[in-house]
Amino acid sequence: MSGPSGLTFAMEDAAGITASAAKPVPTPSNNLVTPLLTDLYQITMAYAYWKTNQHLRPAHFELFFRKNPFGGSYTLFAGLDEVLKFLAHFRFSEDDIRFLRNTPQLSHCEPAFFDDYLSNLDCSDVVVHAMREGSMAFPRVPLITVTAPLGIGNLIETTLLTLVNYPSLVATNACRMVVAARGQFWEETAGSSPPLRTSKSSSPPRSSHPHSGFRKSIQMTEGGMTDIRLRKPKCVEFGLRRAQGPDGGFSASKYSYLGGFHATSNVLAGKMLDMPIAGTHAHSFVQSYTSLELVEGAKLKPFRPAAGIGVETKDEEMVLLLPIVLKYRHDLGWEETNDGELAAFVGYAVSFPNSFLCLIDTYDTLQSGLRNFILVSLALNDLGYTPRGIRLDSGDLSYLSLECEYVFHEMAERCQRGFFYDLDIVASNDINESVLNSLNKQGHAITMFGIGTNLVTCQAQPALGCVYKLVEVDEQPRIKLSNDLEKVLIPGRKVAYRLFGEAGWPLLDLLVCRNETNRPTAGERVLCRHPFIEQKRVAVVPSRVVQLHSLVFDGKNGVVSGLPSVEETRQFVNDQINHTRADLLRYMNPGEYKVSVSENTFHFLHQLWQNETPVRELR
Amino acid sequence: MSGPSGLTFAMEDAAGITASAAKPVPTPSNNLVTPLLTDLYQITMAYAYWKTNQHLRPAHFELFFRKNPFGGSYTLFAGLDEVLKFLAHFRFSEDDIRFLRNTPQLSHCEPAFFDDYLSNLDCSDVVVHAMREGSMAFPRVPLITVTAPLGIGNLIETTLLTLVNYPSLVATNACRMVVAARGQFWEETAGSSPPLRTSKSSSPPRSSHPHSGFRKSIQMTEGGMTDIRLRKPKCVEFGLRRAQGPDGGFSASKYSYLGGFHATSNVLAGKMLDMPIAGTHAHSFVQSYTSLELVEGAKLKPFRPAAGIGVETKDEEMVLLLPIVLKYRHDLGWEETNDGELAAFVGYAVSFPNSFLCLIDTYDTLQSGLRNFILVSLALNDLGYTPRGIRLDSGDLSYLSLECEYVFHEMAERCQRGFFYDLDIVASNDINESVLNSLNKQGHAITMFGIGTNLVTCQAQPALGCVYKLVEVDEQPRIKLSNDLEKVLIPGRKVAYRLFGEAGWPLLDLLVCRNETNRPTAGERVLCRHPFIEQKRVAVVPSRVVQLHSLVFDGKNGVVSGLPSVEETRQFVNDQINHTRADLLRYMNPGEYKVSVSENTFHFLHQLWQNETPVRELR
Repeated sequence: MSGPSGLTFAMEDAAGITASAAKPVPTPSNNLVTPLLTDLYQITMAYAYWKTNQHLRPAHFELFFRKNPFGGSYTLFAGLDEVLKFLAHFRFSEDDIRFLRNTPQLSHCEPAFFDDYLSNLDCSDVVVHAMREGSMAFPRVPLITVTAPLGIGNLIETTLLTLVNYPSLVATNACRMVVAARGQFWEETAGSSPPLRTSKSSSPPRSSHPHSGFRKSIQMTEGGMTDIRLRKPKCVEFGLRRAQGPDGGFSASKYSYLGGFHATSNVLAGKMLDMPIAGTHAHSFVQSYTSLELVEGAKLKPFRPAAGIGVETKDEEMVLLLPIVLKYRHDLGWEETNDGELAAFVGYAVSFPNSFLCLIDTYDTLQSGLRNFILVSLALNDLGYTPRGIRLDSGDLSYLSLECEYVFHEMAERCQRGFFYDLDIVASNDINESVLNSLNKQGHAITMFGIGTNLVTCQAQPALGCVYKLVEVDEQPRIKLSNDLEKVLIPGRKVAYRLFGEAGWPLLDLLVCRNETNRPTAGERVLCRHPFIEQKRVAVVPSRVVQLHSLVFDGKNGVVSGLPSVEETRQFVNDQINHTRADLLRYMNPGEYKVSVSENTFHFLHQLWQNETPVRELR
Repeated sequence: MSGPSGLTFAMEDAAGITASAAKPVPTPSNNLVTPLLTDLYQITMAYAYWKTNQHLRPAHFELFFRKNPFGGSYTLFAGLDEVLKFLAHFRFSEDDIRFLRNTPQLSHCEPAFFDDYLSNLDCSDVVVHAMREGSMAFPRVPLITVTAPLGIGNLIETTLLTLVNYPSLVATNACRMVVAARGQFWEETAGSSPPLRTSKSSSPPRSSHPHSGFRKSIQMTEGGMTDIRLRKPKCVEFGLRRAQGPDGGFSASKYSYLGGFHATSNVLAGKMLDMPIAGTHAHSFVQSYTSLELVEGAKLKPFRPAAGIGVETKDEEMVLLLPIVLKYRHDLGWEETNDGELAAFVGYAVSFPNSFLCLIDTYDTLQSGLRNFILVSLALNDLGYTPRGIRLDSGDLSYLSLECEYVFHEMAERCQRGFFYDLDIVASNDINESVLNSLNKQGHAITMFGIGTNLVTCQAQPALGCVYKLVEVDEQPRIKLSNDLEKVLIPGRKVAYRLFGEAGWPLLDLLVCRNETNRPTAGERVLCRHPFIEQKRVAVVPSRVVQLHSLVFDGKNGVVSGLPSVEETRQFVNDQINHTRADLLRYMNPGEYKVSVSENTFHFLHQLWQNETPVRELR
């Protein structure tokens, strides 16, 4: 068996398989992703197949899930890029073989199993079709199909599941959070412009009660936002420290971004994936400054925008920042704010004058943190800089964000400084989808959410139950029955179609046996049946029909059409969400998207089911 | 700044720090564990510290959690080994520096920050104390303390949290499951002998109703097991495919084992950590055998134990297995079992005759799977082999396991085969702690649990909230206040003691300020106070006092006393659990373990709290 010649990107081609280009397929991002990253039973089964000479029988496997996570109506498919890297480099090392040979469970195995079979095994006989990475996917529709000899087809099962399950789960979670953060709909366009805010020119509404005006302005109604401003908070991933170890964190960063997040705090993800990173400072930074003396000498060069583009003036003198800050403190009568905190903000300001964003809840959010931020902001602004905002990490985020916004707007009028209208209010502290929805209902002034634990751990449902099932062997369809109806398999190799309606939205997905000649066609009526419930059926005249799988890996030629890029996939996710029925995106009790089988497939499934089920006897 | 000379194991020594031995400290298990595996705000803070010349101020940090996971009363500390590897190899690569220099947020930073500071930074000025890996730990008692200059002390925060949070969480989860699986108490001894069962000589109890006898025999009562047999099911980790990617799975395997699991299905974990692995076959294996013809030629060499040790006879003829199986099928009148399944079991038997364990729920557990297993087992046993058991992966595990056990015992009598009494009944399918407790109540005959999803994702609480806090800088204690009382910090550098009572069990943990001269001593009365609630206090006369932290990393000498071994740590966990008050191990509403402060520390904390809190004005 020769190695797969295609450890390279293939040139893109409409036909799919073509000659390979020079660019080699990278190895998996994680050095643990090797053929041994699998369950032992894959190896014991491989031996039993080999021993009984079944290992080369042609087989067909489907990787799919049975239920959408988070009580939702859809799942985003992710992880394909790492699957392709794994397949392209699949090889047991000599060291791996040595280990297996000495494993107690395998020590009795015939040497030829290791020497002739495992040692020479690669994926040159494996053919993989898959949905496009980032696709909205639905229960029972395969994400990936594998056509391969029984032995190798089985040996890759666990690794494929590992590489798809969590990425798909966290991408879906991220997407749901982004949808929730933005209110009802998500209509971001590529390039992600900053969130629209009230312009500096339009003075914010006021009312006699200090906050009522602002609260009202972003109150949600059943139908969506009634805000006079179009506020679309962004989401940033902060979860590394709470993830399942280093790689859990890395995967979380990557696939949250793919699902619509704007950035991650994870520097390594930024480096390895070329994605935006974000971060400013922590409580410890504030605590570490114990007195104002520590920043007495902190100086800053004034900044003057020239010709529309900000450039630093070279000749200007460095200016001490603290005296300006203290003058404002005196003038505003805010002498009681925490000195250490004020020192920390001054220290941060001279280090990051162009991106000054402070965590304000170390001692007291409104009495100390907010005021200290304003003092340093005014001084920075005097020197020509535009402060960026604040972060809240505890307390009532709705109340505090509105209160801060109110004070900012008050300061904008009092001091005639427009930047106060444009400040970011970042909120973190155990944010999840339910908190986002609750904040929308309460009203808030948050422009950016930092989400960690609940994003990366997928707290609401920490695992996606993807499975990898044998559906055909020797061209014979195989079924798996079970005491649990949910675990019954739709047997045989199938082709999947997405049928679109006149409105341009997907109507349903349809599974058709491969041998069936009658395929769905645009403009032609097709009967679509629920796979298990006889009474559920619907006739569809699709306006457009899209086949969901394409060839992505061909053993002989390796990876076809190159690896999907994260940016492209992210945009694809966004496009799909924007063309999805609103009821499918609903948080509570979303609509259900139909996954159907054709008339013939329905009958075929039920006949095989009958044949394979023994009739029980009760006495 | 020179590199830490101690990238080696130090020789064990009572005093702690000694000369290094030759064995180098390995690099972290995961190639992603580098200084860049951190949040961006650690780097921006480092710059602000450097820029304001604070980066070399001596500081002290504590890594701790605020709440036990899973509603429990304890947490197992894990992950220290990888922390030490990370510290020993901490160095930004040239490539890392290049990336940081070009990061938009850092592009304005002075070149000297990269060239002089980051490029030369390592952990040679870092001193780390820690609890022993595997320790039972309690809220607010530091797991790890770091004494280091402010800059580097901060830069390692996120990575340390990532390396401790998940390992500790999953080890705790595993330990709780092991305790639950075994009934009330866990008293395993080292070497882990197989579970005690009814011996072959004692015939099992019978009753007129087919199952009542067995059900009753393992019924649980409030006080624990009343079983006539001492049944202690084992737990095996099956979670790789549902973990947070490859490394999530790898960490899960390692730390579940540490927490008391017996094996993992993860082959790579077996190879890299030298831990037991387990696995047999999946549904797909059964499905792939389509007819009996496929195993018509399957032969096996009879096996005869000689001189107490099993050895294969070399000269004996190979025997066809299928005819023997079919004869039993005919004799027992079980012609209706599924042929493909029977073929698969025959195929598995000739491949693994000494460890024959079958998954029996592919078509119908009791009517087909169980009977096919028995048929092949009888044939195998005729040839001198001892079959191992069955696995159930769906349905009512209590009912099915008891039913299978009943049939096994019936077969044992009917065919006079003792092996039927010793078969393993493995159960999998969404097992969690609550299911284990429920199975104990219902009664079951399961001897081994395969636990995947709920173990590795820690479904019941998917994150442990470890934090890393600055408690002292320039020898001044630092406090962090918060709108959330729970987030208030106990300031200053503290020493932690575990006070044991006369019964040999721990009574409470006591935190004492480092400067305090009055330390707890065996036999002397000490007043222990709740850190926040004035009224809660208790006087303790400890029989034994153990200081909880010891030096584990000294910048100048590297890792002190070597890395903890997984096996030793596992034993240490076991020993502690066996010496813990039973109420602390309870599933529902466990007792609370006290974490106290000394009288002086109490007053010091409350005074600092007052000083740093601004007095709010309400008008």
